[in-house]
Amino acid sequence: MTLDSTWYTEQWSGQGSAISLKIRDKVHDERSPYQRIEIYETETFGTLMTLDGLVMVTDRDNFIYHEMMSHPALFTHPRPRRVLIIGGGDCGTLREVLKHPSVELAEQVELDERVTRVSERYFPELCASNGDPRAQLRFDDGIRWVARAQAGSYDVIIVDSTDPVGPAAGLFSEEFYRNCFRALGDRGILAGQSESPLFHPQLIRSMHQALRTAGFLDTAVLSFPQCTYPSGWWSATLACKDASLSGFRQEAVAEKTFPTRYYNLGVHTAAMATPEFLYELLL
Amino acid sequence: MTLDSTWYTEQWSGQGSAISLKIRDKVHDERSPYQRIEIYETETFGTLMTLDGLVMVTDRDNFIYHEMMSHPALFTHPRPRRVLIIGGGDCGTLREVLKHPSVELAEQVELDERVTRVSERYFPELCASNGDPRAQLRFDDGIRWVARAQAGSYDVIIVDSTDPVGPAAGLFSEEFYRNCFRALGDRGILAGQSESPLFHPQLIRSMHQALRTAGFLDTAVLSFPQCTYPSGWWSATLACKDASLSGFRQEAVAEKTFPTRYYNLGVHTAAMATPEFLYELLL
Repeated sequence: MTLDSTWYTEQWSGQGSAISLKIRDKVHDERSPYQRIEIYETETFGTLMTLDGLVMVTDRDNFIYHEMMSHPALFTHPRPRRVLIIGGGDCGTLREVLKHPSVELAEQVELDERVTRVSERYFPELCASNGDPRAQLRFDDGIRWVARAQAGSYDVIIVDSTDPVGPAAGLFSEEFYRNCFRALGDRGILAGQSESPLFHPQLIRSMHQALRTAGFLDTAVLSFPQCTYPSGWWSATLACKDASLSGFRQEAVAEKTFPTRYYNLGVHTAAMATPEFLYELLL
Repeated sequence: MTLDSTWYTEQWSGQGSAISLKIRDKVHDERSPYQRIEIYETETFGTLMTLDGLVMVTDRDNFIYHEMMSHPALFTHPRPRRVLIIGGGDCGTLREVLKHPSVELAEQVELDERVTRVSERYFPELCASNGDPRAQLRFDDGIRWVARAQAGSYDVIIVDSTDPVGPAAGLFSEEFYRNCFRALGDRGILAGQSESPLFHPQLIRSMHQALRTAGFLDTAVLSFPQCTYPSGWWSATLACKDASLSGFRQEAVAEKTFPTRYYNLGVHTAAMATPEFLYELLL
Protein backbone atom coordinates (compact mmCIF):
# COMPACT_ATOMS: atom_id res chain seq x y z
CA MET A 1 0.00 0.00 0.00
CA THR A 2 1.12 3.58 -0.42
CA LEU A 3 0.69 6.29 2.18
CA ASP A 4 -1.12 9.50 1.34
CA SER A 5 -0.07 13.04 2.17
CA THR A 6 -1.31 12.76 5.78
CA TRP A 7 1.92 10.90 6.54
CA TYR A 8 5.37 12.34 7.16
CA THR A 9 8.01 10.04 5.65
CA GLU A 10 11.78 9.99 6.19
CA GLN A 11 13.75 7.88 3.78
CA TRP A 12 16.72 6.40 5.64
CA SER A 13 19.55 7.62 3.47
CA GLY A 14 21.24 4.88 1.48
CA GLN A 15 19.37 2.15 3.37
CA GLY A 16 16.43 1.47 1.03
CA SER A 17 14.07 1.89 3.95
CA ALA A 18 11.88 4.57 5.46
CA ILE A 19 9.77 5.40 8.48
CA SER A 20 6.47 7.22 8.35
CA LEU A 21 4.44 8.92 11.04
CA LYS A 22 0.78 9.81 10.61
CA ILE A 23 0.34 13.54 11.04
CA ARG A 24 -2.60 15.64 12.10
CA ASP A 25 -1.11 19.00 11.17
CA LYS A 26 2.06 20.82 10.30
CA VAL A 27 2.25 23.64 12.83
CA HIS A 28 5.57 25.30 12.00
CA ASP A 29 7.86 25.60 8.99
CA GLU A 30 10.83 27.95 8.73
CA ARG A 31 14.22 28.20 7.09
CA SER A 32 16.84 29.29 9.58
CA PRO A 33 20.28 30.41 8.39
CA TYR A 34 21.36 26.78 8.75
CA GLN A 35 18.46 24.49 7.95
CA ARG A 36 14.76 23.96 7.49
CA ILE A 37 12.92 23.47 10.77
CA GLU A 38 9.48 21.85 10.68
CA ILE A 39 7.11 20.93 13.48
CA TYR A 40 4.23 18.48 13.10
CA GLU A 41 1.54 17.23 15.40
CA THR A 42 1.44 13.47 14.87
CA GLU A 43 -1.35 11.08 15.66
CA THR A 44 0.51 8.83 18.11
CA PHE A 45 4.02 10.26 18.63
CA GLY A 46 3.00 13.69 19.93
CA THR A 47 4.97 16.62 18.55
CA LEU A 48 7.64 15.93 15.94
CA MET A 49 10.56 18.19 14.94
CA THR A 50 12.46 17.61 11.73
CA LEU A 51 15.60 19.37 10.49
CA ASP A 52 16.08 19.32 6.73
CA GLY A 53 13.45 16.57 6.59
CA LEU A 54 15.10 14.26 9.14
CA VAL A 55 13.46 13.29 12.45
CA MET A 56 15.19 14.96 15.39
CA VAL A 57 12.77 14.46 18.24
CA THR A 58 9.27 13.21 19.01
CA ASP A 59 7.42 13.50 22.30
CA ARG A 60 6.92 9.76 22.50
CA ASP A 61 10.39 8.29 22.22
CA ASN A 62 12.94 11.06 22.92
CA PHE A 63 13.30 9.97 26.56
CA ILE A 64 15.43 6.98 25.59
CA TYR A 65 17.89 9.00 23.52
CA HIS A 66 18.23 11.88 25.96
CA GLU A 67 18.70 9.65 28.99
CA MET A 68 21.29 7.48 27.24
CA MET A 69 23.23 10.50 25.93
CA SER A 70 23.62 11.91 29.44
CA HIS A 71 23.35 9.55 32.42
CA PRO A 72 25.92 6.89 31.45
CA ALA A 73 28.52 9.63 30.90
CA LEU A 74 27.69 11.51 34.08
CA PHE A 75 27.56 8.38 36.23
CA THR A 76 30.94 7.32 34.85
CA HIS A 77 32.79 10.50 35.81
CA PRO A 78 33.63 10.43 39.54
CA ARG A 79 32.21 13.91 40.16
CA PRO A 80 30.89 15.76 37.10
CA ARG A 81 30.75 19.48 37.81
CA ARG A 82 31.37 21.18 34.47
CA VAL A 83 29.52 19.74 31.46
CA LEU A 84 29.68 20.91 27.85
CA ILE A 85 26.94 19.94 25.39
CA ILE A 86 27.70 20.44 21.69
CA GLY A 87 24.50 20.68 19.65
CA GLY A 88 21.52 19.46 21.64
CA GLY A 89 19.37 22.40 20.57
CA ASP A 90 16.11 20.77 21.68
CA CYS A 91 17.51 20.96 25.24
CA GLY A 92 16.39 17.45 26.21
CA THR A 93 19.96 16.35 26.99
CA LEU A 94 20.53 19.55 28.96
CA ARG A 95 17.50 18.79 31.11
CA GLU A 96 18.84 15.32 31.94
CA VAL A 97 22.34 16.67 32.71
CA LEU A 98 20.89 19.20 35.15
CA LYS A 99 19.21 16.41 37.12
CA HIS A 100 22.67 15.57 38.53
CA PRO A 101 23.18 17.54 41.76
CA SER A 102 26.98 17.62 41.34
CA VAL A 103 26.70 19.68 38.15
CA GLU A 104 27.65 23.33 38.67
CA LEU A 105 27.77 24.41 35.02
CA ALA A 106 26.01 22.95 31.97
CA GLU A 107 27.13 24.90 28.95
CA GLN A 108 25.34 24.19 25.70
CA VAL A 109 26.84 25.30 22.40
CA GLU A 110 24.28 24.96 19.60
CA LEU A 111 24.96 26.35 16.15
CA ASP A 112 21.37 27.26 15.34
CA GLU A 113 19.57 29.42 17.89
CA ARG A 114 16.30 28.91 16.01
CA VAL A 115 16.27 25.19 16.92
CA THR A 116 16.26 26.13 20.59
CA ARG A 117 13.70 28.92 20.21
CA VAL A 118 11.35 26.64 18.29
CA SER A 119 11.87 23.88 20.88
CA GLU A 120 11.04 26.27 23.71
CA ARG A 121 7.70 26.82 22.03
CA TYR A 122 6.83 23.28 20.91
CA PHE A 123 8.74 21.09 23.40
CA PRO A 124 8.35 23.07 26.62
CA GLU A 125 8.96 19.99 28.78
CA LEU A 126 12.36 19.39 27.16
CA CYS A 127 13.24 23.05 27.80
CA ALA A 128 11.93 23.01 31.37
CA SER A 129 15.41 23.45 32.84
CA ASN A 130 16.67 26.16 30.46
CA GLY A 131 16.14 28.74 33.22
CA ASP A 132 18.27 26.80 35.71
CA PRO A 133 21.05 29.16 36.87
CA ARG A 134 23.61 26.42 36.11
CA ALA A 135 22.53 26.33 32.43
CA GLN A 136 24.40 28.52 29.93
CA LEU A 137 22.98 28.57 26.42
CA ARG A 138 25.52 29.66 23.78
CA PHE A 139 24.74 29.85 20.09
CA ASP A 140 28.04 29.26 18.40
CA ASP A 141 30.14 26.80 16.41
CA GLY A 142 30.86 23.85 18.70
CA ILE A 143 33.98 22.80 16.80
CA ARG A 144 35.54 26.23 17.26
CA TRP A 145 34.31 26.42 20.85
CA VAL A 146 36.17 23.26 21.81
CA ALA A 147 39.29 24.32 19.88
CA ARG A 148 39.40 27.51 21.96
CA ALA A 149 38.38 25.99 25.29
CA GLN A 150 40.85 26.18 28.16
CA ALA A 151 42.69 22.91 28.81
CA GLY A 152 41.00 20.77 31.46
CA SER A 153 37.97 23.01 31.69
CA TYR A 154 35.24 20.35 31.42
CA ASP A 155 34.52 17.05 33.16
CA VAL A 156 32.11 15.74 30.54
CA ILE A 157 31.58 16.71 26.88
CA ILE A 158 28.41 15.45 25.20
CA VAL A 159 28.21 15.64 21.41
CA ASP A 160 24.47 15.63 20.72
CA SER A 161 24.75 16.26 17.02
CA THR A 162 22.95 15.57 13.78
CA ASP A 163 24.28 12.99 11.32
CA PRO A 164 27.92 13.24 10.23
CA VAL A 165 27.22 15.27 7.10
CA GLY A 166 27.39 19.03 6.50
CA PRO A 167 28.36 21.18 9.48
CA ALA A 168 28.21 18.18 11.84
CA ALA A 169 30.85 16.15 9.94
CA GLY A 170 33.65 17.87 11.85
CA LEU A 171 32.19 16.58 15.11
CA PHE A 172 33.30 13.07 14.12
CA SER A 173 36.91 13.98 13.23
CA GLU A 174 40.12 13.09 15.01
CA GLU A 175 41.06 16.76 15.23
CA PHE A 176 37.82 17.53 17.08
CA TYR A 177 38.42 14.62 19.45
CA ARG A 178 41.97 15.86 20.12
CA ASN A 179 40.54 19.21 21.12
CA CYS A 180 37.95 17.52 23.33
CA PHE A 181 40.72 15.48 24.95
CA ARG A 182 42.59 18.68 25.76
CA ALA A 183 39.48 20.48 27.02
CA LEU A 184 38.66 17.62 29.41
CA GLY A 185 40.17 17.33 32.88
CA ASP A 186 41.40 14.16 34.58
CA ARG A 187 38.95 11.26 34.24
CA GLY A 188 37.17 13.36 31.61
CA ILE A 189 34.40 11.65 29.61
CA LEU A 190 33.26 12.28 26.08
CA ALA A 191 29.88 10.95 24.89
CA GLY A 192 28.86 11.26 21.26
CA GLN A 193 25.87 10.01 19.31
CA SER A 194 27.20 7.36 16.94
CA GLU A 195 24.33 6.35 14.65
CA SER A 196 22.89 2.87 14.09
CA PRO A 197 24.78 -0.36 14.88
CA LEU A 198 22.83 -2.06 12.07
CA PHE A 199 23.18 0.64 9.42
CA HIS A 200 26.44 2.37 10.31
CA PRO A 201 28.81 -0.10 12.00
CA GLN A 202 31.76 1.23 9.99
CA LEU A 203 31.12 4.73 11.33
CA ILE A 204 31.18 3.36 14.88
CA ARG A 205 34.45 1.59 14.11
CA SER A 206 36.09 4.70 12.66
CA MET A 207 34.84 6.84 15.56
CA HIS A 208 36.48 4.48 18.05
CA GLN A 209 39.71 4.47 16.09
CA ALA A 210 39.73 8.28 15.87
CA LEU A 211 39.04 8.60 19.62
CA ARG A 212 41.88 6.21 20.49
CA THR A 213 44.25 7.97 18.12
CA ALA A 214 43.25 11.29 19.68
CA GLY A 215 44.46 9.94 23.03
CA PHE A 216 41.43 8.53 24.80
CA LEU A 217 42.37 5.46 26.85
CA ASP A 218 39.07 3.56 26.71
CA THR A 219 36.04 3.64 24.43
CA ALA A 220 32.71 1.81 24.52
CA VAL A 221 29.52 1.65 22.48
CA LEU A 222 26.20 1.99 24.26
CA SER A 223 23.29 0.77 22.19
CA PHE A 224 19.61 1.40 22.75
CA PRO A 225 16.32 1.35 20.87
CA GLN A 226 15.17 4.58 19.23
CA CYS A 227 12.06 3.94 17.19
CA THR A 228 12.14 7.06 15.01
CA TYR A 229 15.85 7.02 14.13
CA PRO A 230 17.19 5.00 11.20
CA SER A 231 16.80 1.22 11.83
CA GLY A 232 15.12 1.86 15.20
CA TRP A 233 18.41 1.01 16.92
CA TRP A 234 20.85 3.71 17.94
CA SER A 235 24.12 4.14 19.77
CA ALA A 236 26.23 6.51 21.80
CA THR A 237 29.97 6.14 22.03
CA LEU A 238 31.68 6.84 25.35
CA ALA A 239 35.36 7.63 25.71
CA CYS A 240 37.39 8.19 28.86
CA LYS A 241 40.59 10.18 28.85
CA ASP A 242 42.59 8.10 31.28
CA ALA A 243 40.56 5.34 32.93
CA SER A 244 38.38 2.33 32.14
CA LEU A 245 34.71 2.90 31.36
CA SER A 246 33.58 -0.25 33.12
CA GLY A 247 34.02 1.26 36.57
CA PHE A 248 31.03 3.59 36.63
CA ARG A 249 29.41 4.77 39.88
CA GLN A 250 27.00 1.85 40.31
CA GLU A 251 25.96 2.78 43.86
CA ALA A 252 25.14 6.31 42.81
CA VAL A 253 22.96 4.97 39.98
CA ALA A 254 21.15 2.62 42.35
CA GLU A 255 20.50 5.52 44.74
CA LYS A 256 19.84 8.25 42.18
CA THR A 257 17.51 10.93 43.46
CA PHE A 258 15.75 11.77 40.19
CA PRO A 259 13.32 9.82 38.02
CA THR A 260 14.13 8.28 34.65
CA ARG A 261 11.91 6.34 32.26
CA TYR A 262 14.46 4.19 30.42
CA TYR A 263 17.80 4.42 32.23
CA ASN A 264 18.60 2.47 35.39
CA LEU A 265 21.49 0.43 36.77
CA GLY A 266 20.69 -2.69 34.78
CA VAL A 267 20.17 -0.70 31.60
CA HIS A 268 23.54 1.07 31.95
CA THR A 269 25.44 -2.21 32.14
CA ALA A 270 23.26 -3.79 29.47
CA ALA A 271 23.78 -0.97 26.99
CA MET A 272 27.52 -1.67 27.03
CA ALA A 273 27.10 -5.28 25.86
CA THR A 274 28.44 -5.61 22.34
CA PRO A 275 26.60 -7.79 19.83
CA GLU A 276 28.84 -10.39 18.24
CA PHE A 277 29.05 -8.78 14.78
CA LEU A 278 29.98 -5.43 16.27
CA TYR A 279 32.50 -6.97 18.64
CA GLU A 280 34.26 -8.61 15.70
CA LEU A 281 34.27 -5.30 13.83
CA LEU A 282 35.74 -3.37 16.77
CA LEU A 283 38.48 -5.92 17.58
CA MET B 1 7.54 13.13 0.65
CA THR B 2 5.43 10.19 -0.43
CA LEU B 3 6.80 6.86 -1.58
CA ASP B 4 5.87 5.43 -4.94
CA SER B 5 4.83 1.88 -5.75
CA THR B 6 8.44 0.65 -5.74
CA TRP B 7 8.19 0.57 -1.93
CA TYR B 8 6.60 -2.06 0.25
CA THR B 9 4.93 -0.41 3.25
CA GLU B 10 3.63 -1.95 6.47
CA GLN B 11 1.47 0.28 8.62
CA TRP B 12 2.12 -0.58 12.24
CA SER B 13 -1.39 -1.35 13.41
CA GLY B 14 -2.86 1.26 15.74
CA GLN B 15 0.50 3.02 16.11
CA GLY B 16 0.20 5.80 13.50
CA SER B 17 3.53 4.75 12.07
CA ALA B 18 4.85 2.61 9.23
CA ILE B 19 8.01 1.11 7.82
CA SER B 20 8.82 0.91 4.13
CA LEU B 21 11.37 -1.14 2.25
CA LYS B 22 12.41 -0.32 -1.30
CA ILE B 23 11.66 -3.30 -3.52
CA ARG B 24 13.18 -4.50 -6.77
CA ASP B 25 10.58 -7.12 -7.53
CA LYS B 26 7.76 -9.18 -6.14
CA VAL B 27 8.76 -12.75 -6.83
CA HIS B 28 5.96 -14.77 -5.22
CA ASP B 29 2.34 -14.20 -4.23
CA GLU B 30 -0.07 -16.91 -3.11
CA ARG B 31 -3.07 -17.41 -0.88
CA SER B 32 -2.62 -20.46 1.29
CA PRO B 33 -5.60 -21.90 3.21
CA TYR B 34 -4.54 -19.65 6.10
CA GLN B 35 -3.05 -16.44 4.74
CA ARG B 36 -1.53 -14.52 1.88
CA ILE B 37 2.19 -15.23 1.45
CA GLU B 38 4.26 -12.73 -0.52
CA ILE B 39 7.97 -12.68 -1.30
CA TYR B 40 9.84 -9.57 -2.45
CA GLU B 41 13.40 -8.89 -3.44
CA THR B 42 14.31 -5.64 -1.67
CA GLU B 43 17.08 -3.25 -2.49
CA THR B 44 18.99 -3.43 0.81
CA PHE B 45 17.27 -6.01 3.05
CA GLY B 46 17.63 -9.01 0.73
CA THR B 47 14.58 -11.25 0.44
CA LEU B 48 11.45 -10.28 2.37
CA MET B 49 8.50 -12.50 3.30
CA THR B 50 5.19 -11.00 4.40
CA LEU B 51 2.13 -12.82 5.72
CA ASP B 52 -1.15 -10.97 5.21
CA GLY B 53 0.90 -7.84 4.48
CA LEU B 54 3.01 -7.96 7.67
CA VAL B 55 6.81 -8.37 7.65
CA MET B 56 7.82 -11.82 8.89
CA VAL B 57 11.44 -12.09 7.87
CA THR B 58 14.13 -10.31 5.86
CA ASP B 59 17.58 -11.65 4.99
CA ARG B 60 19.25 -8.66 6.62
CA ASP B 61 17.92 -8.57 10.16
CA ASN B 62 16.35 -11.97 10.93
CA PHE B 63 19.52 -13.16 12.68
CA ILE B 64 18.79 -11.06 15.76
CA TYR B 65 15.25 -12.39 16.20
CA HIS B 66 16.09 -16.03 15.55
CA GLU B 67 19.11 -16.05 17.85
CA MET B 68 17.23 -14.33 20.66
CA MET B 69 14.22 -16.65 20.36
CA SER B 70 16.41 -19.73 20.77
CA HIS B 71 19.78 -19.38 22.52
CA PRO B 72 18.71 -17.68 25.77
CA ALA B 73 16.10 -20.41 26.33
CA LEU B 74 18.42 -23.28 25.42
CA PHE B 75 21.32 -21.92 27.49
CA THR B 76 18.98 -21.53 30.47
CA HIS B 77 17.80 -25.14 30.53
CA PRO B 78 20.48 -27.34 32.18
CA ARG B 79 20.45 -29.88 29.32
CA PRO B 80 17.94 -29.26 26.55
CA ARG B 81 17.30 -32.49 24.65
CA ARG B 82 13.69 -32.24 23.45
CA VAL B 83 12.60 -28.92 21.97
CA LEU B 84 9.17 -27.99 20.61
CA ILE B 85 8.79 -24.99 18.29
CA ILE B 86 5.25 -23.70 17.74
CA GLY B 87 4.98 -21.70 14.52
CA GLY B 88 8.41 -20.77 13.21
CA GLY B 89 7.53 -21.76 9.65
CA ASP B 90 10.51 -19.97 8.11
CA CYS B 91 12.70 -22.47 10.03
CA GLY B 92 15.23 -19.85 11.21
CA THR B 93 14.57 -20.64 14.87
CA LEU B 94 14.80 -24.37 14.13
CA ARG B 95 18.22 -23.85 12.58
CA GLU B 96 19.48 -22.04 15.71
CA VAL B 97 18.03 -24.72 18.03
CA LEU B 98 19.82 -27.47 16.11
CA LYS B 99 23.16 -25.74 16.70
CA HIS B 100 22.99 -27.04 20.30
CA PRO B 101 24.69 -30.43 20.47
CA SER B 102 22.56 -31.58 23.42
CA VAL B 103 19.37 -31.41 21.32
CA GLU B 104 18.10 -34.84 20.31
CA LEU B 105 14.69 -33.81 18.95
CA ALA B 106 13.54 -30.47 17.56
CA GLU B 107 9.89 -30.79 16.70
CA GLN B 108 8.33 -27.90 14.83
CA VAL B 109 4.55 -27.54 14.67
CA GLU B 110 3.57 -24.94 12.07
CA LEU B 111 -0.05 -24.44 11.06
CA ASP B 112 0.66 -23.46 7.46
CA GLU B 113 2.82 -25.88 5.49
CA ARG B 114 3.01 -23.38 2.62
CA VAL B 115 5.04 -20.96 4.75
CA THR B 116 7.72 -23.61 5.15
CA ARG B 117 7.62 -24.70 1.52
CA VAL B 118 7.94 -21.10 0.32
CA SER B 119 10.77 -20.51 2.83
CA GLU B 120 12.63 -23.57 1.58
CA ARG B 121 12.63 -21.95 -1.84
CA TYR B 122 13.34 -18.31 -0.95
CA PHE B 123 15.23 -18.58 2.35
CA PRO B 124 17.37 -21.68 1.79
CA GLU B 125 19.90 -20.63 4.41
CA LEU B 126 17.20 -20.48 7.12
CA CYS B 127 16.06 -23.95 6.08
CA ALA B 128 19.58 -25.36 5.88
CA SER B 129 19.00 -27.68 8.86
CA ASN B 130 15.56 -28.96 7.87
CA GLY B 131 17.15 -32.23 6.78
CA ASP B 132 18.87 -32.77 10.13
CA PRO B 133 17.70 -36.16 11.43
CA ARG B 134 16.85 -34.52 14.75
CA ALA B 135 14.36 -32.13 13.05
CA GLN B 136 10.71 -33.18 12.81
CA LEU B 137 8.49 -30.87 10.79
CA ARG B 138 4.79 -31.21 11.64
CA PHE B 139 2.07 -29.14 10.02
CA ASP B 140 -0.64 -28.95 12.59
CA ASP B 141 -2.38 -26.71 15.12
CA GLY B 142 0.16 -25.86 17.83
CA ILE B 143 -2.48 -25.13 20.45
CA ARG B 144 -4.01 -28.56 20.01
CA TRP B 145 -0.57 -30.18 19.79
CA VAL B 146 0.43 -28.87 23.20
CA ALA B 147 -2.96 -29.73 24.71
CA ARG B 148 -2.43 -33.35 23.65
CA ALA B 149 1.28 -33.58 24.44
CA GLN B 150 2.40 -36.08 27.03
CA ALA B 151 3.22 -34.52 30.40
CA GLY B 152 6.89 -33.67 30.79
CA SER B 153 7.72 -34.49 27.19
CA TYR B 154 9.70 -31.34 26.30
CA ASP B 155 12.59 -29.45 27.87
CA VAL B 156 12.03 -26.20 25.95
CA ILE B 157 8.96 -24.87 24.14
CA ILE B 158 9.51 -21.90 21.79
CA VAL B 159 6.44 -20.00 20.62
CA ASP B 160 7.62 -18.34 17.41
CA SER B 161 4.25 -16.98 16.41
CA THR B 162 2.68 -14.12 14.51
CA ASP B 163 0.95 -11.26 16.36
CA PRO B 164 -1.72 -12.15 18.93
CA VAL B 165 -4.64 -11.83 16.55
CA GLY B 166 -6.50 -14.50 14.56
CA PRO B 167 -5.26 -18.07 14.93
CA ALA B 168 -2.24 -16.91 16.97
CA ALA B 169 -4.31 -15.26 19.72
CA GLY B 170 -4.66 -18.56 21.57
CA LEU B 171 -0.86 -18.78 21.84
CA PHE B 172 -0.97 -15.90 24.35
CA SER B 173 -3.69 -17.40 26.60
CA GLU B 174 -3.43 -18.74 30.12
CA GLU B 175 -4.95 -22.04 29.00
CA PHE B 176 -2.21 -22.50 26.41
CA TYR B 177 0.46 -21.69 29.00
CA ARG B 178 -1.08 -24.22 31.40
CA ASN B 179 -0.77 -26.87 28.72
CA CYS B 180 2.83 -25.82 28.04
CA PHE B 181 3.57 -26.05 31.76
CA ARG B 182 2.23 -29.59 31.81
CA ALA B 183 4.09 -30.58 28.63
CA LEU B 184 7.40 -29.34 30.04
CA GLY B 185 9.63 -31.45 32.26
CA ASP B 186 11.54 -30.30 35.35
CA ARG B 187 13.41 -27.03 34.78
CA GLY B 188 11.37 -26.65 31.59
CA ILE B 189 11.63 -23.34 29.75
CA LEU B 190 9.05 -21.58 27.62
CA ALA B 191 10.12 -18.75 25.28
CA GLY B 192 7.53 -16.73 23.42
CA GLN B 193 7.76 -13.71 21.15
CA SER B 194 6.12 -10.86 23.06
CA GLU B 195 5.92 -7.88 20.71
CA SER B 196 7.36 -4.38 21.22
CA PRO B 197 8.23 -2.94 24.65
CA LEU B 198 7.44 0.54 23.27
CA PHE B 199 4.18 -0.29 21.49
CA HIS B 200 2.78 -3.22 23.45
CA PRO B 201 3.93 -3.04 27.09
CA GLN B 202 0.45 -4.01 28.32
CA LEU B 203 0.64 -7.20 26.28
CA ILE B 204 3.98 -8.04 27.91
CA ARG B 205 2.45 -7.39 31.31
CA SER B 206 -0.57 -9.60 30.68
CA MET B 207 1.63 -12.35 29.23
CA HIS B 208 3.71 -12.40 32.41
CA GLN B 209 0.61 -12.47 34.59
CA ALA B 210 -0.88 -15.33 32.54
CA LEU B 211 2.39 -17.30 32.72
CA ARG B 212 2.58 -16.89 36.50
CA THR B 213 -1.06 -17.82 36.94
CA ALA B 214 -0.46 -20.88 34.75
CA GLY B 215 2.16 -22.01 37.27
CA PHE B 216 5.52 -20.80 35.95
CA LEU B 217 7.81 -19.83 38.82
CA ASP B 218 9.88 -17.13 37.10
CA THR B 219 9.41 -14.95 34.04
CA ALA B 220 11.66 -12.42 32.30
CA VAL B 221 11.54 -10.13 29.30
CA LEU B 222 14.42 -10.20 26.84
CA SER B 223 14.50 -7.15 24.60
CA PHE B 224 16.44 -6.65 21.41
CA PRO B 225 16.46 -4.50 18.28
CA GLN B 226 14.55 -5.74 15.27
CA CYS B 227 14.54 -3.12 12.56
CA THR B 228 11.66 -4.42 10.46
CA TYR B 229 9.22 -5.22 13.29
CA PRO B 230 6.91 -2.54 14.74
CA SER B 231 8.91 0.19 16.56
CA GLY B 232 12.23 -1.50 15.68
CA TRP B 233 12.38 -2.88 19.23
CA TRP B 234 11.15 -6.37 20.03
CA SER B 235 10.98 -8.79 22.92
CA ALA B 236 10.84 -12.43 23.90
CA THR B 237 9.40 -13.55 27.19
CA LEU B 238 11.07 -16.43 29.01
CA ALA B 239 9.39 -18.50 31.69
CA CYS B 240 10.82 -21.29 33.82
CA LYS B 241 8.62 -23.92 35.37
CA ASP B 242 10.38 -24.28 38.69
CA ALA B 243 13.64 -22.29 38.88
CA SER B 244 15.03 -18.80 38.51
CA LEU B 245 15.93 -17.56 35.02
CA SER B 246 18.97 -15.63 36.18
CA GLY B 247 21.07 -18.77 36.57
CA PHE B 248 21.69 -19.60 32.94
CA ARG B 249 24.70 -21.65 31.78
CA GLN B 250 27.18 -18.79 31.46
CA GLU B 251 30.22 -21.03 30.99
CA ALA B 252 28.53 -22.93 28.20
CA VAL B 253 27.70 -19.65 26.44
CA ALA B 254 31.28 -18.44 26.77
CA GLU B 255 32.51 -21.72 25.31
CA LYS B 256 29.82 -22.28 22.71
CA THR B 257 31.01 -24.24 19.71
CA PHE B 258 28.87 -22.57 17.04
CA PRO B 259 28.91 -19.07 15.56
CA THR B 260 26.32 -16.39 16.22
CA ARG B 261 26.07 -12.86 14.84
CA TYR B 262 24.13 -11.09 17.61
CA TYR B 263 23.97 -13.38 20.64
CA ASN B 264 26.86 -13.80 23.09
CA LEU B 265 27.35 -13.92 26.86
CA GLY B 266 27.15 -10.16 27.35
CA VAL B 267 24.13 -9.87 25.11
CA HIS B 268 22.25 -12.61 27.02
CA THR B 269 22.64 -10.82 30.34
CA ALA B 270 22.02 -7.43 28.76
CA ALA B 271 18.79 -8.49 27.08
CA MET B 272 17.34 -9.26 30.51
CA ALA B 273 17.81 -5.69 31.78
CA THR B 274 14.44 -4.04 32.21
CA PRO B 275 13.99 -0.39 31.23
CA GLU B 276 12.55 1.69 34.03
CA PHE B 277 9.07 2.19 32.52
CA LEU B 278 8.71 -1.54 31.89
CA TYR B 279 9.99 -2.44 35.33
CA GLU B 280 7.35 -0.23 36.91
CA LEU B 281 4.69 -1.80 34.73
CA LEU B 282 5.72 -5.36 35.62
CA LEU B 283 5.99 -4.76 39.40
